[in-house]
Amino acid sequence: MVTDISFESIKHILSTVSNTELLESIELAFLHYSNQKAVVPPVGTISFDDPRGDVHIKYGYILNDDYYVIKIASGFYDNPKQGLPSSNGMMLAFNQKTGVLAGILYDQGYLTDVRTAVAGAISAKYLAPTKVHTIGIMGTGTQAKLQLEFLKGVVDCRKALIWGRSQEKLVAYQEAMTDSGFQIETTLEGDNIAENCQLIVTTTPATEPILKWSDHLTGTHITAIGADTVGKQELDLQIISKADLIVTDSTKQCTRHGEIHKAFNQHLVETNSLVELGQLIEQGKITRKENDLTICDLTGIATQDIQIAKLILEHK
Amino acid sequence: MVTDISFESIKHILSTVSNTELLESIELAFLHYSNQKAVVPPVGTISFDDPRGDVHIKYGYILNDDYYVIKIASGFYDNPKQGLPSSNGMMLAFNQKTGVLAGILYDQGYLTDVRTAVAGAISAKYLAPTKVHTIGIMGTGTQAKLQLEFLKGVVDCRKALIWGRSQEKLVAYQEAMTDSGFQIETTLEGDNIAENCQLIVTTTPATEPILKWSDHLTGTHITAIGADTVGKQELDLQIISKADLIVTDSTKQCTRHGEIHKAFNQHLVETNSLVELGQLIEQGKITRKENDLTICDLTGIATQDIQIAKLILEHK
Repeated sequence: MVTDISFESIKHILSTVSNTELLESIELAFLHYSNQKAVVPPVGTISFDDPRGDVHIKYGYILNDDYYVIKIASGFYDNPKQGLPSSNGMMLAFNQKTGVLAGILYDQGYLTDVRTAVAGAISAKYLAPTKVHTIGIMGTGTQAKLQLEFLKGVVDCRKALIWGRSQEKLVAYQEAMTDSGFQIETTLEGDNIAENCQLIVTTTPATEPILKWSDHLTGTHITAIGADTVGKQELDLQIISKADLIVTDSTKQCTRHGEIHKAFNQHLVETNSLVELGQLIEQGKITRKENDLTICDLTGIATQDIQIAKLILEHK
Repeated sequence: MVTDISFESIKHILSTVSNTELLESIELAFLHYSNQKAVVPPVGTISFDDPRGDVHIKYGYILNDDYYVIKIASGFYDNPKQGLPSSNGMMLAFNQKTGVLAGILYDQGYLTDVRTAVAGAISAKYLAPTKVHTIGIMGTGTQAKLQLEFLKGVVDCRKALIWGRSQEKLVAYQEAMTDSGFQIETTLEGDNIAENCQLIVTTTPATEPILKWSDHLTGTHITAIGADTVGKQELDLQIISKADLIVTDSTKQCTRHGEIHKAFNQHLVETNSLVELGQLIEQGKITRKENDLTICDLTGIATQDIQIAKLILEHK
C-alpha cells in the first residue's frame, strides 16, 4: 500500500508535530550518524548543461529502523523564467525488511528546509551563549526565515538583526516576518552583525566571506548553513582560526565541502580538533567560557532526511 | 502533473506497442550509449544484512532527450516467506529541462525484464546464424520465457530446447509456454544444448559454467544474460577464448562484472577485440562465416531503462 503525501498534507502534518518532537527526532539523526548507526552511501548526482540543472540523490538508512529513504532533489536555474520554482524535491520511504514502498512524500524540498532549520536550532541549543541580546541572521531567503522561527524554541531572545545585500529584500523579509514574534531590524553592513549579535546564523550561497573577523565576535556562537559545496564560503578564515570550538554535522562532509573546507585545506583546522554535533548531543550541553567563539558548520546529512520522513509517515 | 502508471497499465500499454517499435527503441538505447550520447553515472547501492536485501539505484539520461530516469530496483531474498515477491522495482521519469516529475512507473521490475529480453532479440537479430534449427534456452525463470518470446520477431525457428536443473521446473516451463508458438523440448544435460542448438541464450544466476566447450558450438551464437555481478559465470572459459567475435552491451561493465569478466581478468580477452552492441547496430548486420562462434554478453545498461520508460510515457 503506497501512501502518496502531497505538499499540502506534509505542511499540515508538520504543523501538528510539536517542536520538541521535531528537535528530538533530528537530534537522533545526528546521534545515529556520529555513532555509526547509519548507512549513508555517497550522494548520486546528475548534471545538465542547457538549461543548467543539478539533481542530487541522497539515500540511506538507520540500522534496525523501519525505513530506508531515497531523496531526489533538483535545482534547475532557468525554471523561474517559466514561472516554476528552481528547486524541487521528493522523498521515497521503503520498508527496510522487504523493500516495499511505504510512501512518497511530495515535499518539493520543504522537508529539507525544515530539517536544516531544526539543525540550526539544535546547534543553538547546545552551543549558544546563555545571554543572547540579539540574534543575527545573514541572508533573506527561505533558510533566513526558517532558522529564526525555529530558534524561538531554544533561545529566549526575541530581537533579531537581519543582514542582506539589498534593501528591497530586507524590507520583504521584514514584512514576511511581521507575525514571527521577533522584533526585527535590518542592516546592509556585515560588521553590524558582528558588533551586535551573540548568536549568528549565516544562510547565504556566498563564495566570498560576508562576515569578517572582529573582536566583537568573542563570546559569540555562529551557525554556518550556507556553504555546502566547494567554493562556497561565508566566514573569513580568521574567524575559523580564532574559534575555540568548531562543531560539524559530519566532519567528513564539512572538511570536503562545508564552511570549513577552505580552512581545512590550508591546515588552519585539524580534524582531531573537530567535534561532531552527534557527539555533542551524546555528551550534553557544553560549558562555554564567556569569551569563547564557537562555530557549527552544517552541510546536511541523509539521516536528517530519514528522520523527518519517518516523522511525517508516523503522524499521517 | 504527475502520472502514476500502475503495473496493470504498464502491461496493457506495452501490449499495444509493436515489437518493431520496442526493438527500435532499445536499439537506440545501445546506439546512444556507445556513441557517448548518454550520461550514465555509477549505480547507487544500499545493502541490508538481516534480512538480506539489496537496492540498486540506476539513473541517467540521453543528451537532448525528454526525460531523465531514476530506476529503483530491490531484491529482498526472504520476501517469499511472507508471500511477497523478492524483486521489486519502479522507475521515475523527470523532465530534463525543468526537473519536474513526469511519471512514476510502478512496474515491479517488469520493464527491466522486458528491456533485457528485447536486448536478447537484438543480439540475435544482428548475430544469429541464418539457419537456426533449434533455439537453446538455459534456465527456466522469467528471462528464460521472455527471451524465447521476443526471439519470435527476429528468427524464423519455432523449435526450442530448454535446459534446467530440475525436471519439475522444466515441466512448469513447458506448461507455461504452451501457447508460445514454439515446439518445446527439455533436457537436464547441458551438452544437449551445445549439440543441438545454433542460437543459445543463457539466463541463469550460475556461478559455475553450465555450458561447456564442445566442437558442436562452432557456427553458434550465444547470448549470455545471467552474469551481472562478479562471481557469476555461465560459459566455461574455453568457449570465450574460442569465440570469433565477442559483443558486449557495455565493454566497461562486461569486463568488470559480466560473463566475460573472469576471462578478461585472466587475459583471455582483450578490450580492443570487443565490439559494443551499439557499434554493431551502427554498422549493420555482420557477415558470419559458417563456423564462427559468436557471443553477446549482456549486463543491462541504464539507457535501456530510459528508452522503455519513455515508450510507456509516450503511449500512455
